[in-house]
Amino acid sequence: MSTITILGAGMMGSAWCLPLIDAGHSVRLVGTHLDEAIIAQLKQNRHHLKLNYSLPDAVQPFQLSELGEAMAGCEIVGLGVSSQGVRWAARTLAPWLSSQPVMMISKGLEWQAGQLQILPDIFSQELALLGPQLKPSAPCFAPVGVAGPCIAGELARRVETCVVMTGRNPELVKQLARAVRTPYYHAFASPDAVGVETCAALKNAYAMAIAFAVGLHRASGGEAGSIAMHNHESAVFAQAVVEMQRIVEWLGGDSSSAVGLAGVGDLDVTCNGGRTGRFGALLGSGLNREQAVEAMQGATLECLDILATMKQAVDSAGSGAGGELSWQRVPLLQHMVEVVAANAPVNVPFPRFFGGLEL
Amino acid sequence: MSTITILGAGMMGSAWCLPLIDAGHSVRLVGTHLDEAIIAQLKQNRHHLKLNYSLPDAVQPFQLSELGEAMAGCEIVGLGVSSQGVRWAARTLAPWLSSQPVMMISKGLEWQAGQLQILPDIFSQELALLGPQLKPSAPCFAPVGVAGPCIAGELARRVETCVVMTGRNPELVKQLARAVRTPYYHAFASPDAVGVETCAALKNAYAMAIAFAVGLHRASGGEAGSIAMHNHESAVFAQAVVEMQRIVEWLGGDSSSAVGLAGVGDLDVTCNGGRTGRFGALLGSGLNREQAVEAMQGATLECLDILATMKQAVDSAGSGAGGELSWQRVPLLQHMVEVVAANAPVNVPFPRFFGGLEL
Repeated sequence: MSTITILGAGMMGSAWCLPLIDAGHSVRLVGTHLDEAIIAQLKQNRHHLKLNYSLPDAVQPFQLSELGEAMAGCEIVGLGVSSQGVRWAARTLAPWLSSQPVMMISKGLEWQAGQLQILPDIFSQELALLGPQLKPSAPCFAPVGVAGPCIAGELARRVETCVVMTGRNPELVKQLARAVRTPYYHAFASPDAVGVETCAALKNAYAMAIAFAVGLHRASGGEAGSIAMHNHESAVFAQAVVEMQRIVEWLGGDSSSAVGLAGVGDLDVTCNGGRTGRFGALLGSGLNREQAVEAMQGATLECLDILATMKQAVDSAGSGAGGELSWQRVPLLQHMVEVVAANAPVNVPFPRFFGGLEL
Repeated sequence: MSTITILGAGMMGSAWCLPLIDAGHSVRLVGTHLDEAIIAQLKQNRHHLKLNYSLPDAVQPFQLSELGEAMAGCEIVGLGVSSQGVRWAARTLAPWLSSQPVMMISKGLEWQAGQLQILPDIFSQELALLGPQLKPSAPCFAPVGVAGPCIAGELARRVETCVVMTGRNPELVKQLARAVRTPYYHAFASPDAVGVETCAALKNAYAMAIAFAVGLHRASGGEAGSIAMHNHESAVFAQAVVEMQRIVEWLGGDSSSAVGLAGVGDLDVTCNGGRTGRFGALLGSGLNREQAVEAMQGATLECLDILATMKQAVDSAGSGAGGELSWQRVPLLQHMVEVVAANAPVNVPFPRFFGGLEL
């Protein structure tokens, strides 16, 4: 059993403590500068302000200013920061990294040097920039990503959950997957870092489009129920998975990852009333981007980041490791970009979906 | 534009009239012996008793006793009967079949002569049994199946809907897809009859398992909401698609059909509160098969038929066109069969999912 230090005490980083504790580890939870109130409350009575749930006594909370103490004797590092926090986390943790493996639940893609990059690679690139203080063979240069359908509030309540772990070092992935499993936290190992991480990021965009139907139905005066616009919604869902496969193939990943936990599974769970879905419904109901963002009252909208990134990537008409990708191959992604970047009205281009209607 | 005669005036057969009318066809809707009250009411004031919705005046209703009249001058036949009605429909229509193509929305699989058979093949086999009255080249020997996420009550209200059409004669499939399209009814063509039809049938079983979580959550005292057992549900959803792919491959179909409208799309729409989901939730809440069937008050449960068929198929350890299939490859299907055929308690075998947890 190991001492695990998690950086990032938001909902998911904090909920992650539960299986780690239950797997027998000693768990330290360190807040970022955004989590000060959360950590202060945890120290007081174990209540987590965002999860609205009490963490077990075994979880040891630390403020960021106590990071040195939290990293002393740390054997595994966990990253619970947002995608924007990954570079910061690398710089912040670097002084304490030596032989510890790093696992991360952050999800996103970055457009760097004419390439789409997955977050585990961003983390290790940032570490490498810091100079030769770490051996190139240190396990932190091959962070292990965790993806799959996992609502934090459910994980905190020990609901059965399947996740897929992946990274550039498949043996390390398997080792960490074995280390974190519990009877309710089923951690599978995949060697397809590109495919799994890409799907985990894309699902935040595609879930937005799946929710267009809810807003279109509402705007037409319809009520929620079993007769609404589910036909519309489910056709978009199917096309989303098809496009995830195409994008993964383009990047040289394994398209079958889109059919697993990080693709189909995470897309399905994300359609259960989260903020991405609420945002998509607002767009579907006729609000433009600005109005919909305002109505979301400051909620983090990962979908806007990933759509901006994908616009750059596909606009560059880039060749990926797996060939070319053009907008023609991803008509749903193209429509989402038009809606959020050019205020196009929602009007899903079904005839261009699947094989297309041209016979 | 053609004269189309649809046999079967249940919800889906009747809703199907809408796009066919809107595509410019002359549409005749013939009830089976089960639909007498529906047809009588339609003749009176166009109100459909099961859809609880009025059909356009252009739809011409006929009782089964008026089939001859409804088939006079018919250029395309549509089957809206249940899977159990397909052989009966072949025998009933045969006297009027000559050069008309047949399209069918019936979904199911049959175990015949040591093989899983798709319904379009069952229809043509039944026609062939009737003797040499029809030329072997008659288009009715290559019926065109229609699959995809399509809730009848939504189609009747002209909600945008994508379907996939398939059959043994790809040119005929394309011809009929072109014939039935409207601006809201997007009919795609697939040459993969085995894959599309198999997914369309299997989704009724897998939707049952996806709904287990709703019942488990309810039985544990939980309320519906964004924190429930969605993690459980979405992991089962992902595994369902993985297993659909494996079964399609085994039968020699194209596994990518499971990622399209007939697989992912139809599975998603079926999880929107239909009877299969209600039945799965009852099983998840702790009722055994008999109790759950009783609670469903006589509702048709296609999932039980397809599970009985799949049990025979996999038990036979059969080689399919695409190789072997063992229960090890379809652990979710195996669990569903144990639940409905052996009264096993619901306890989803997550560790056996995806690649399995053995590292």
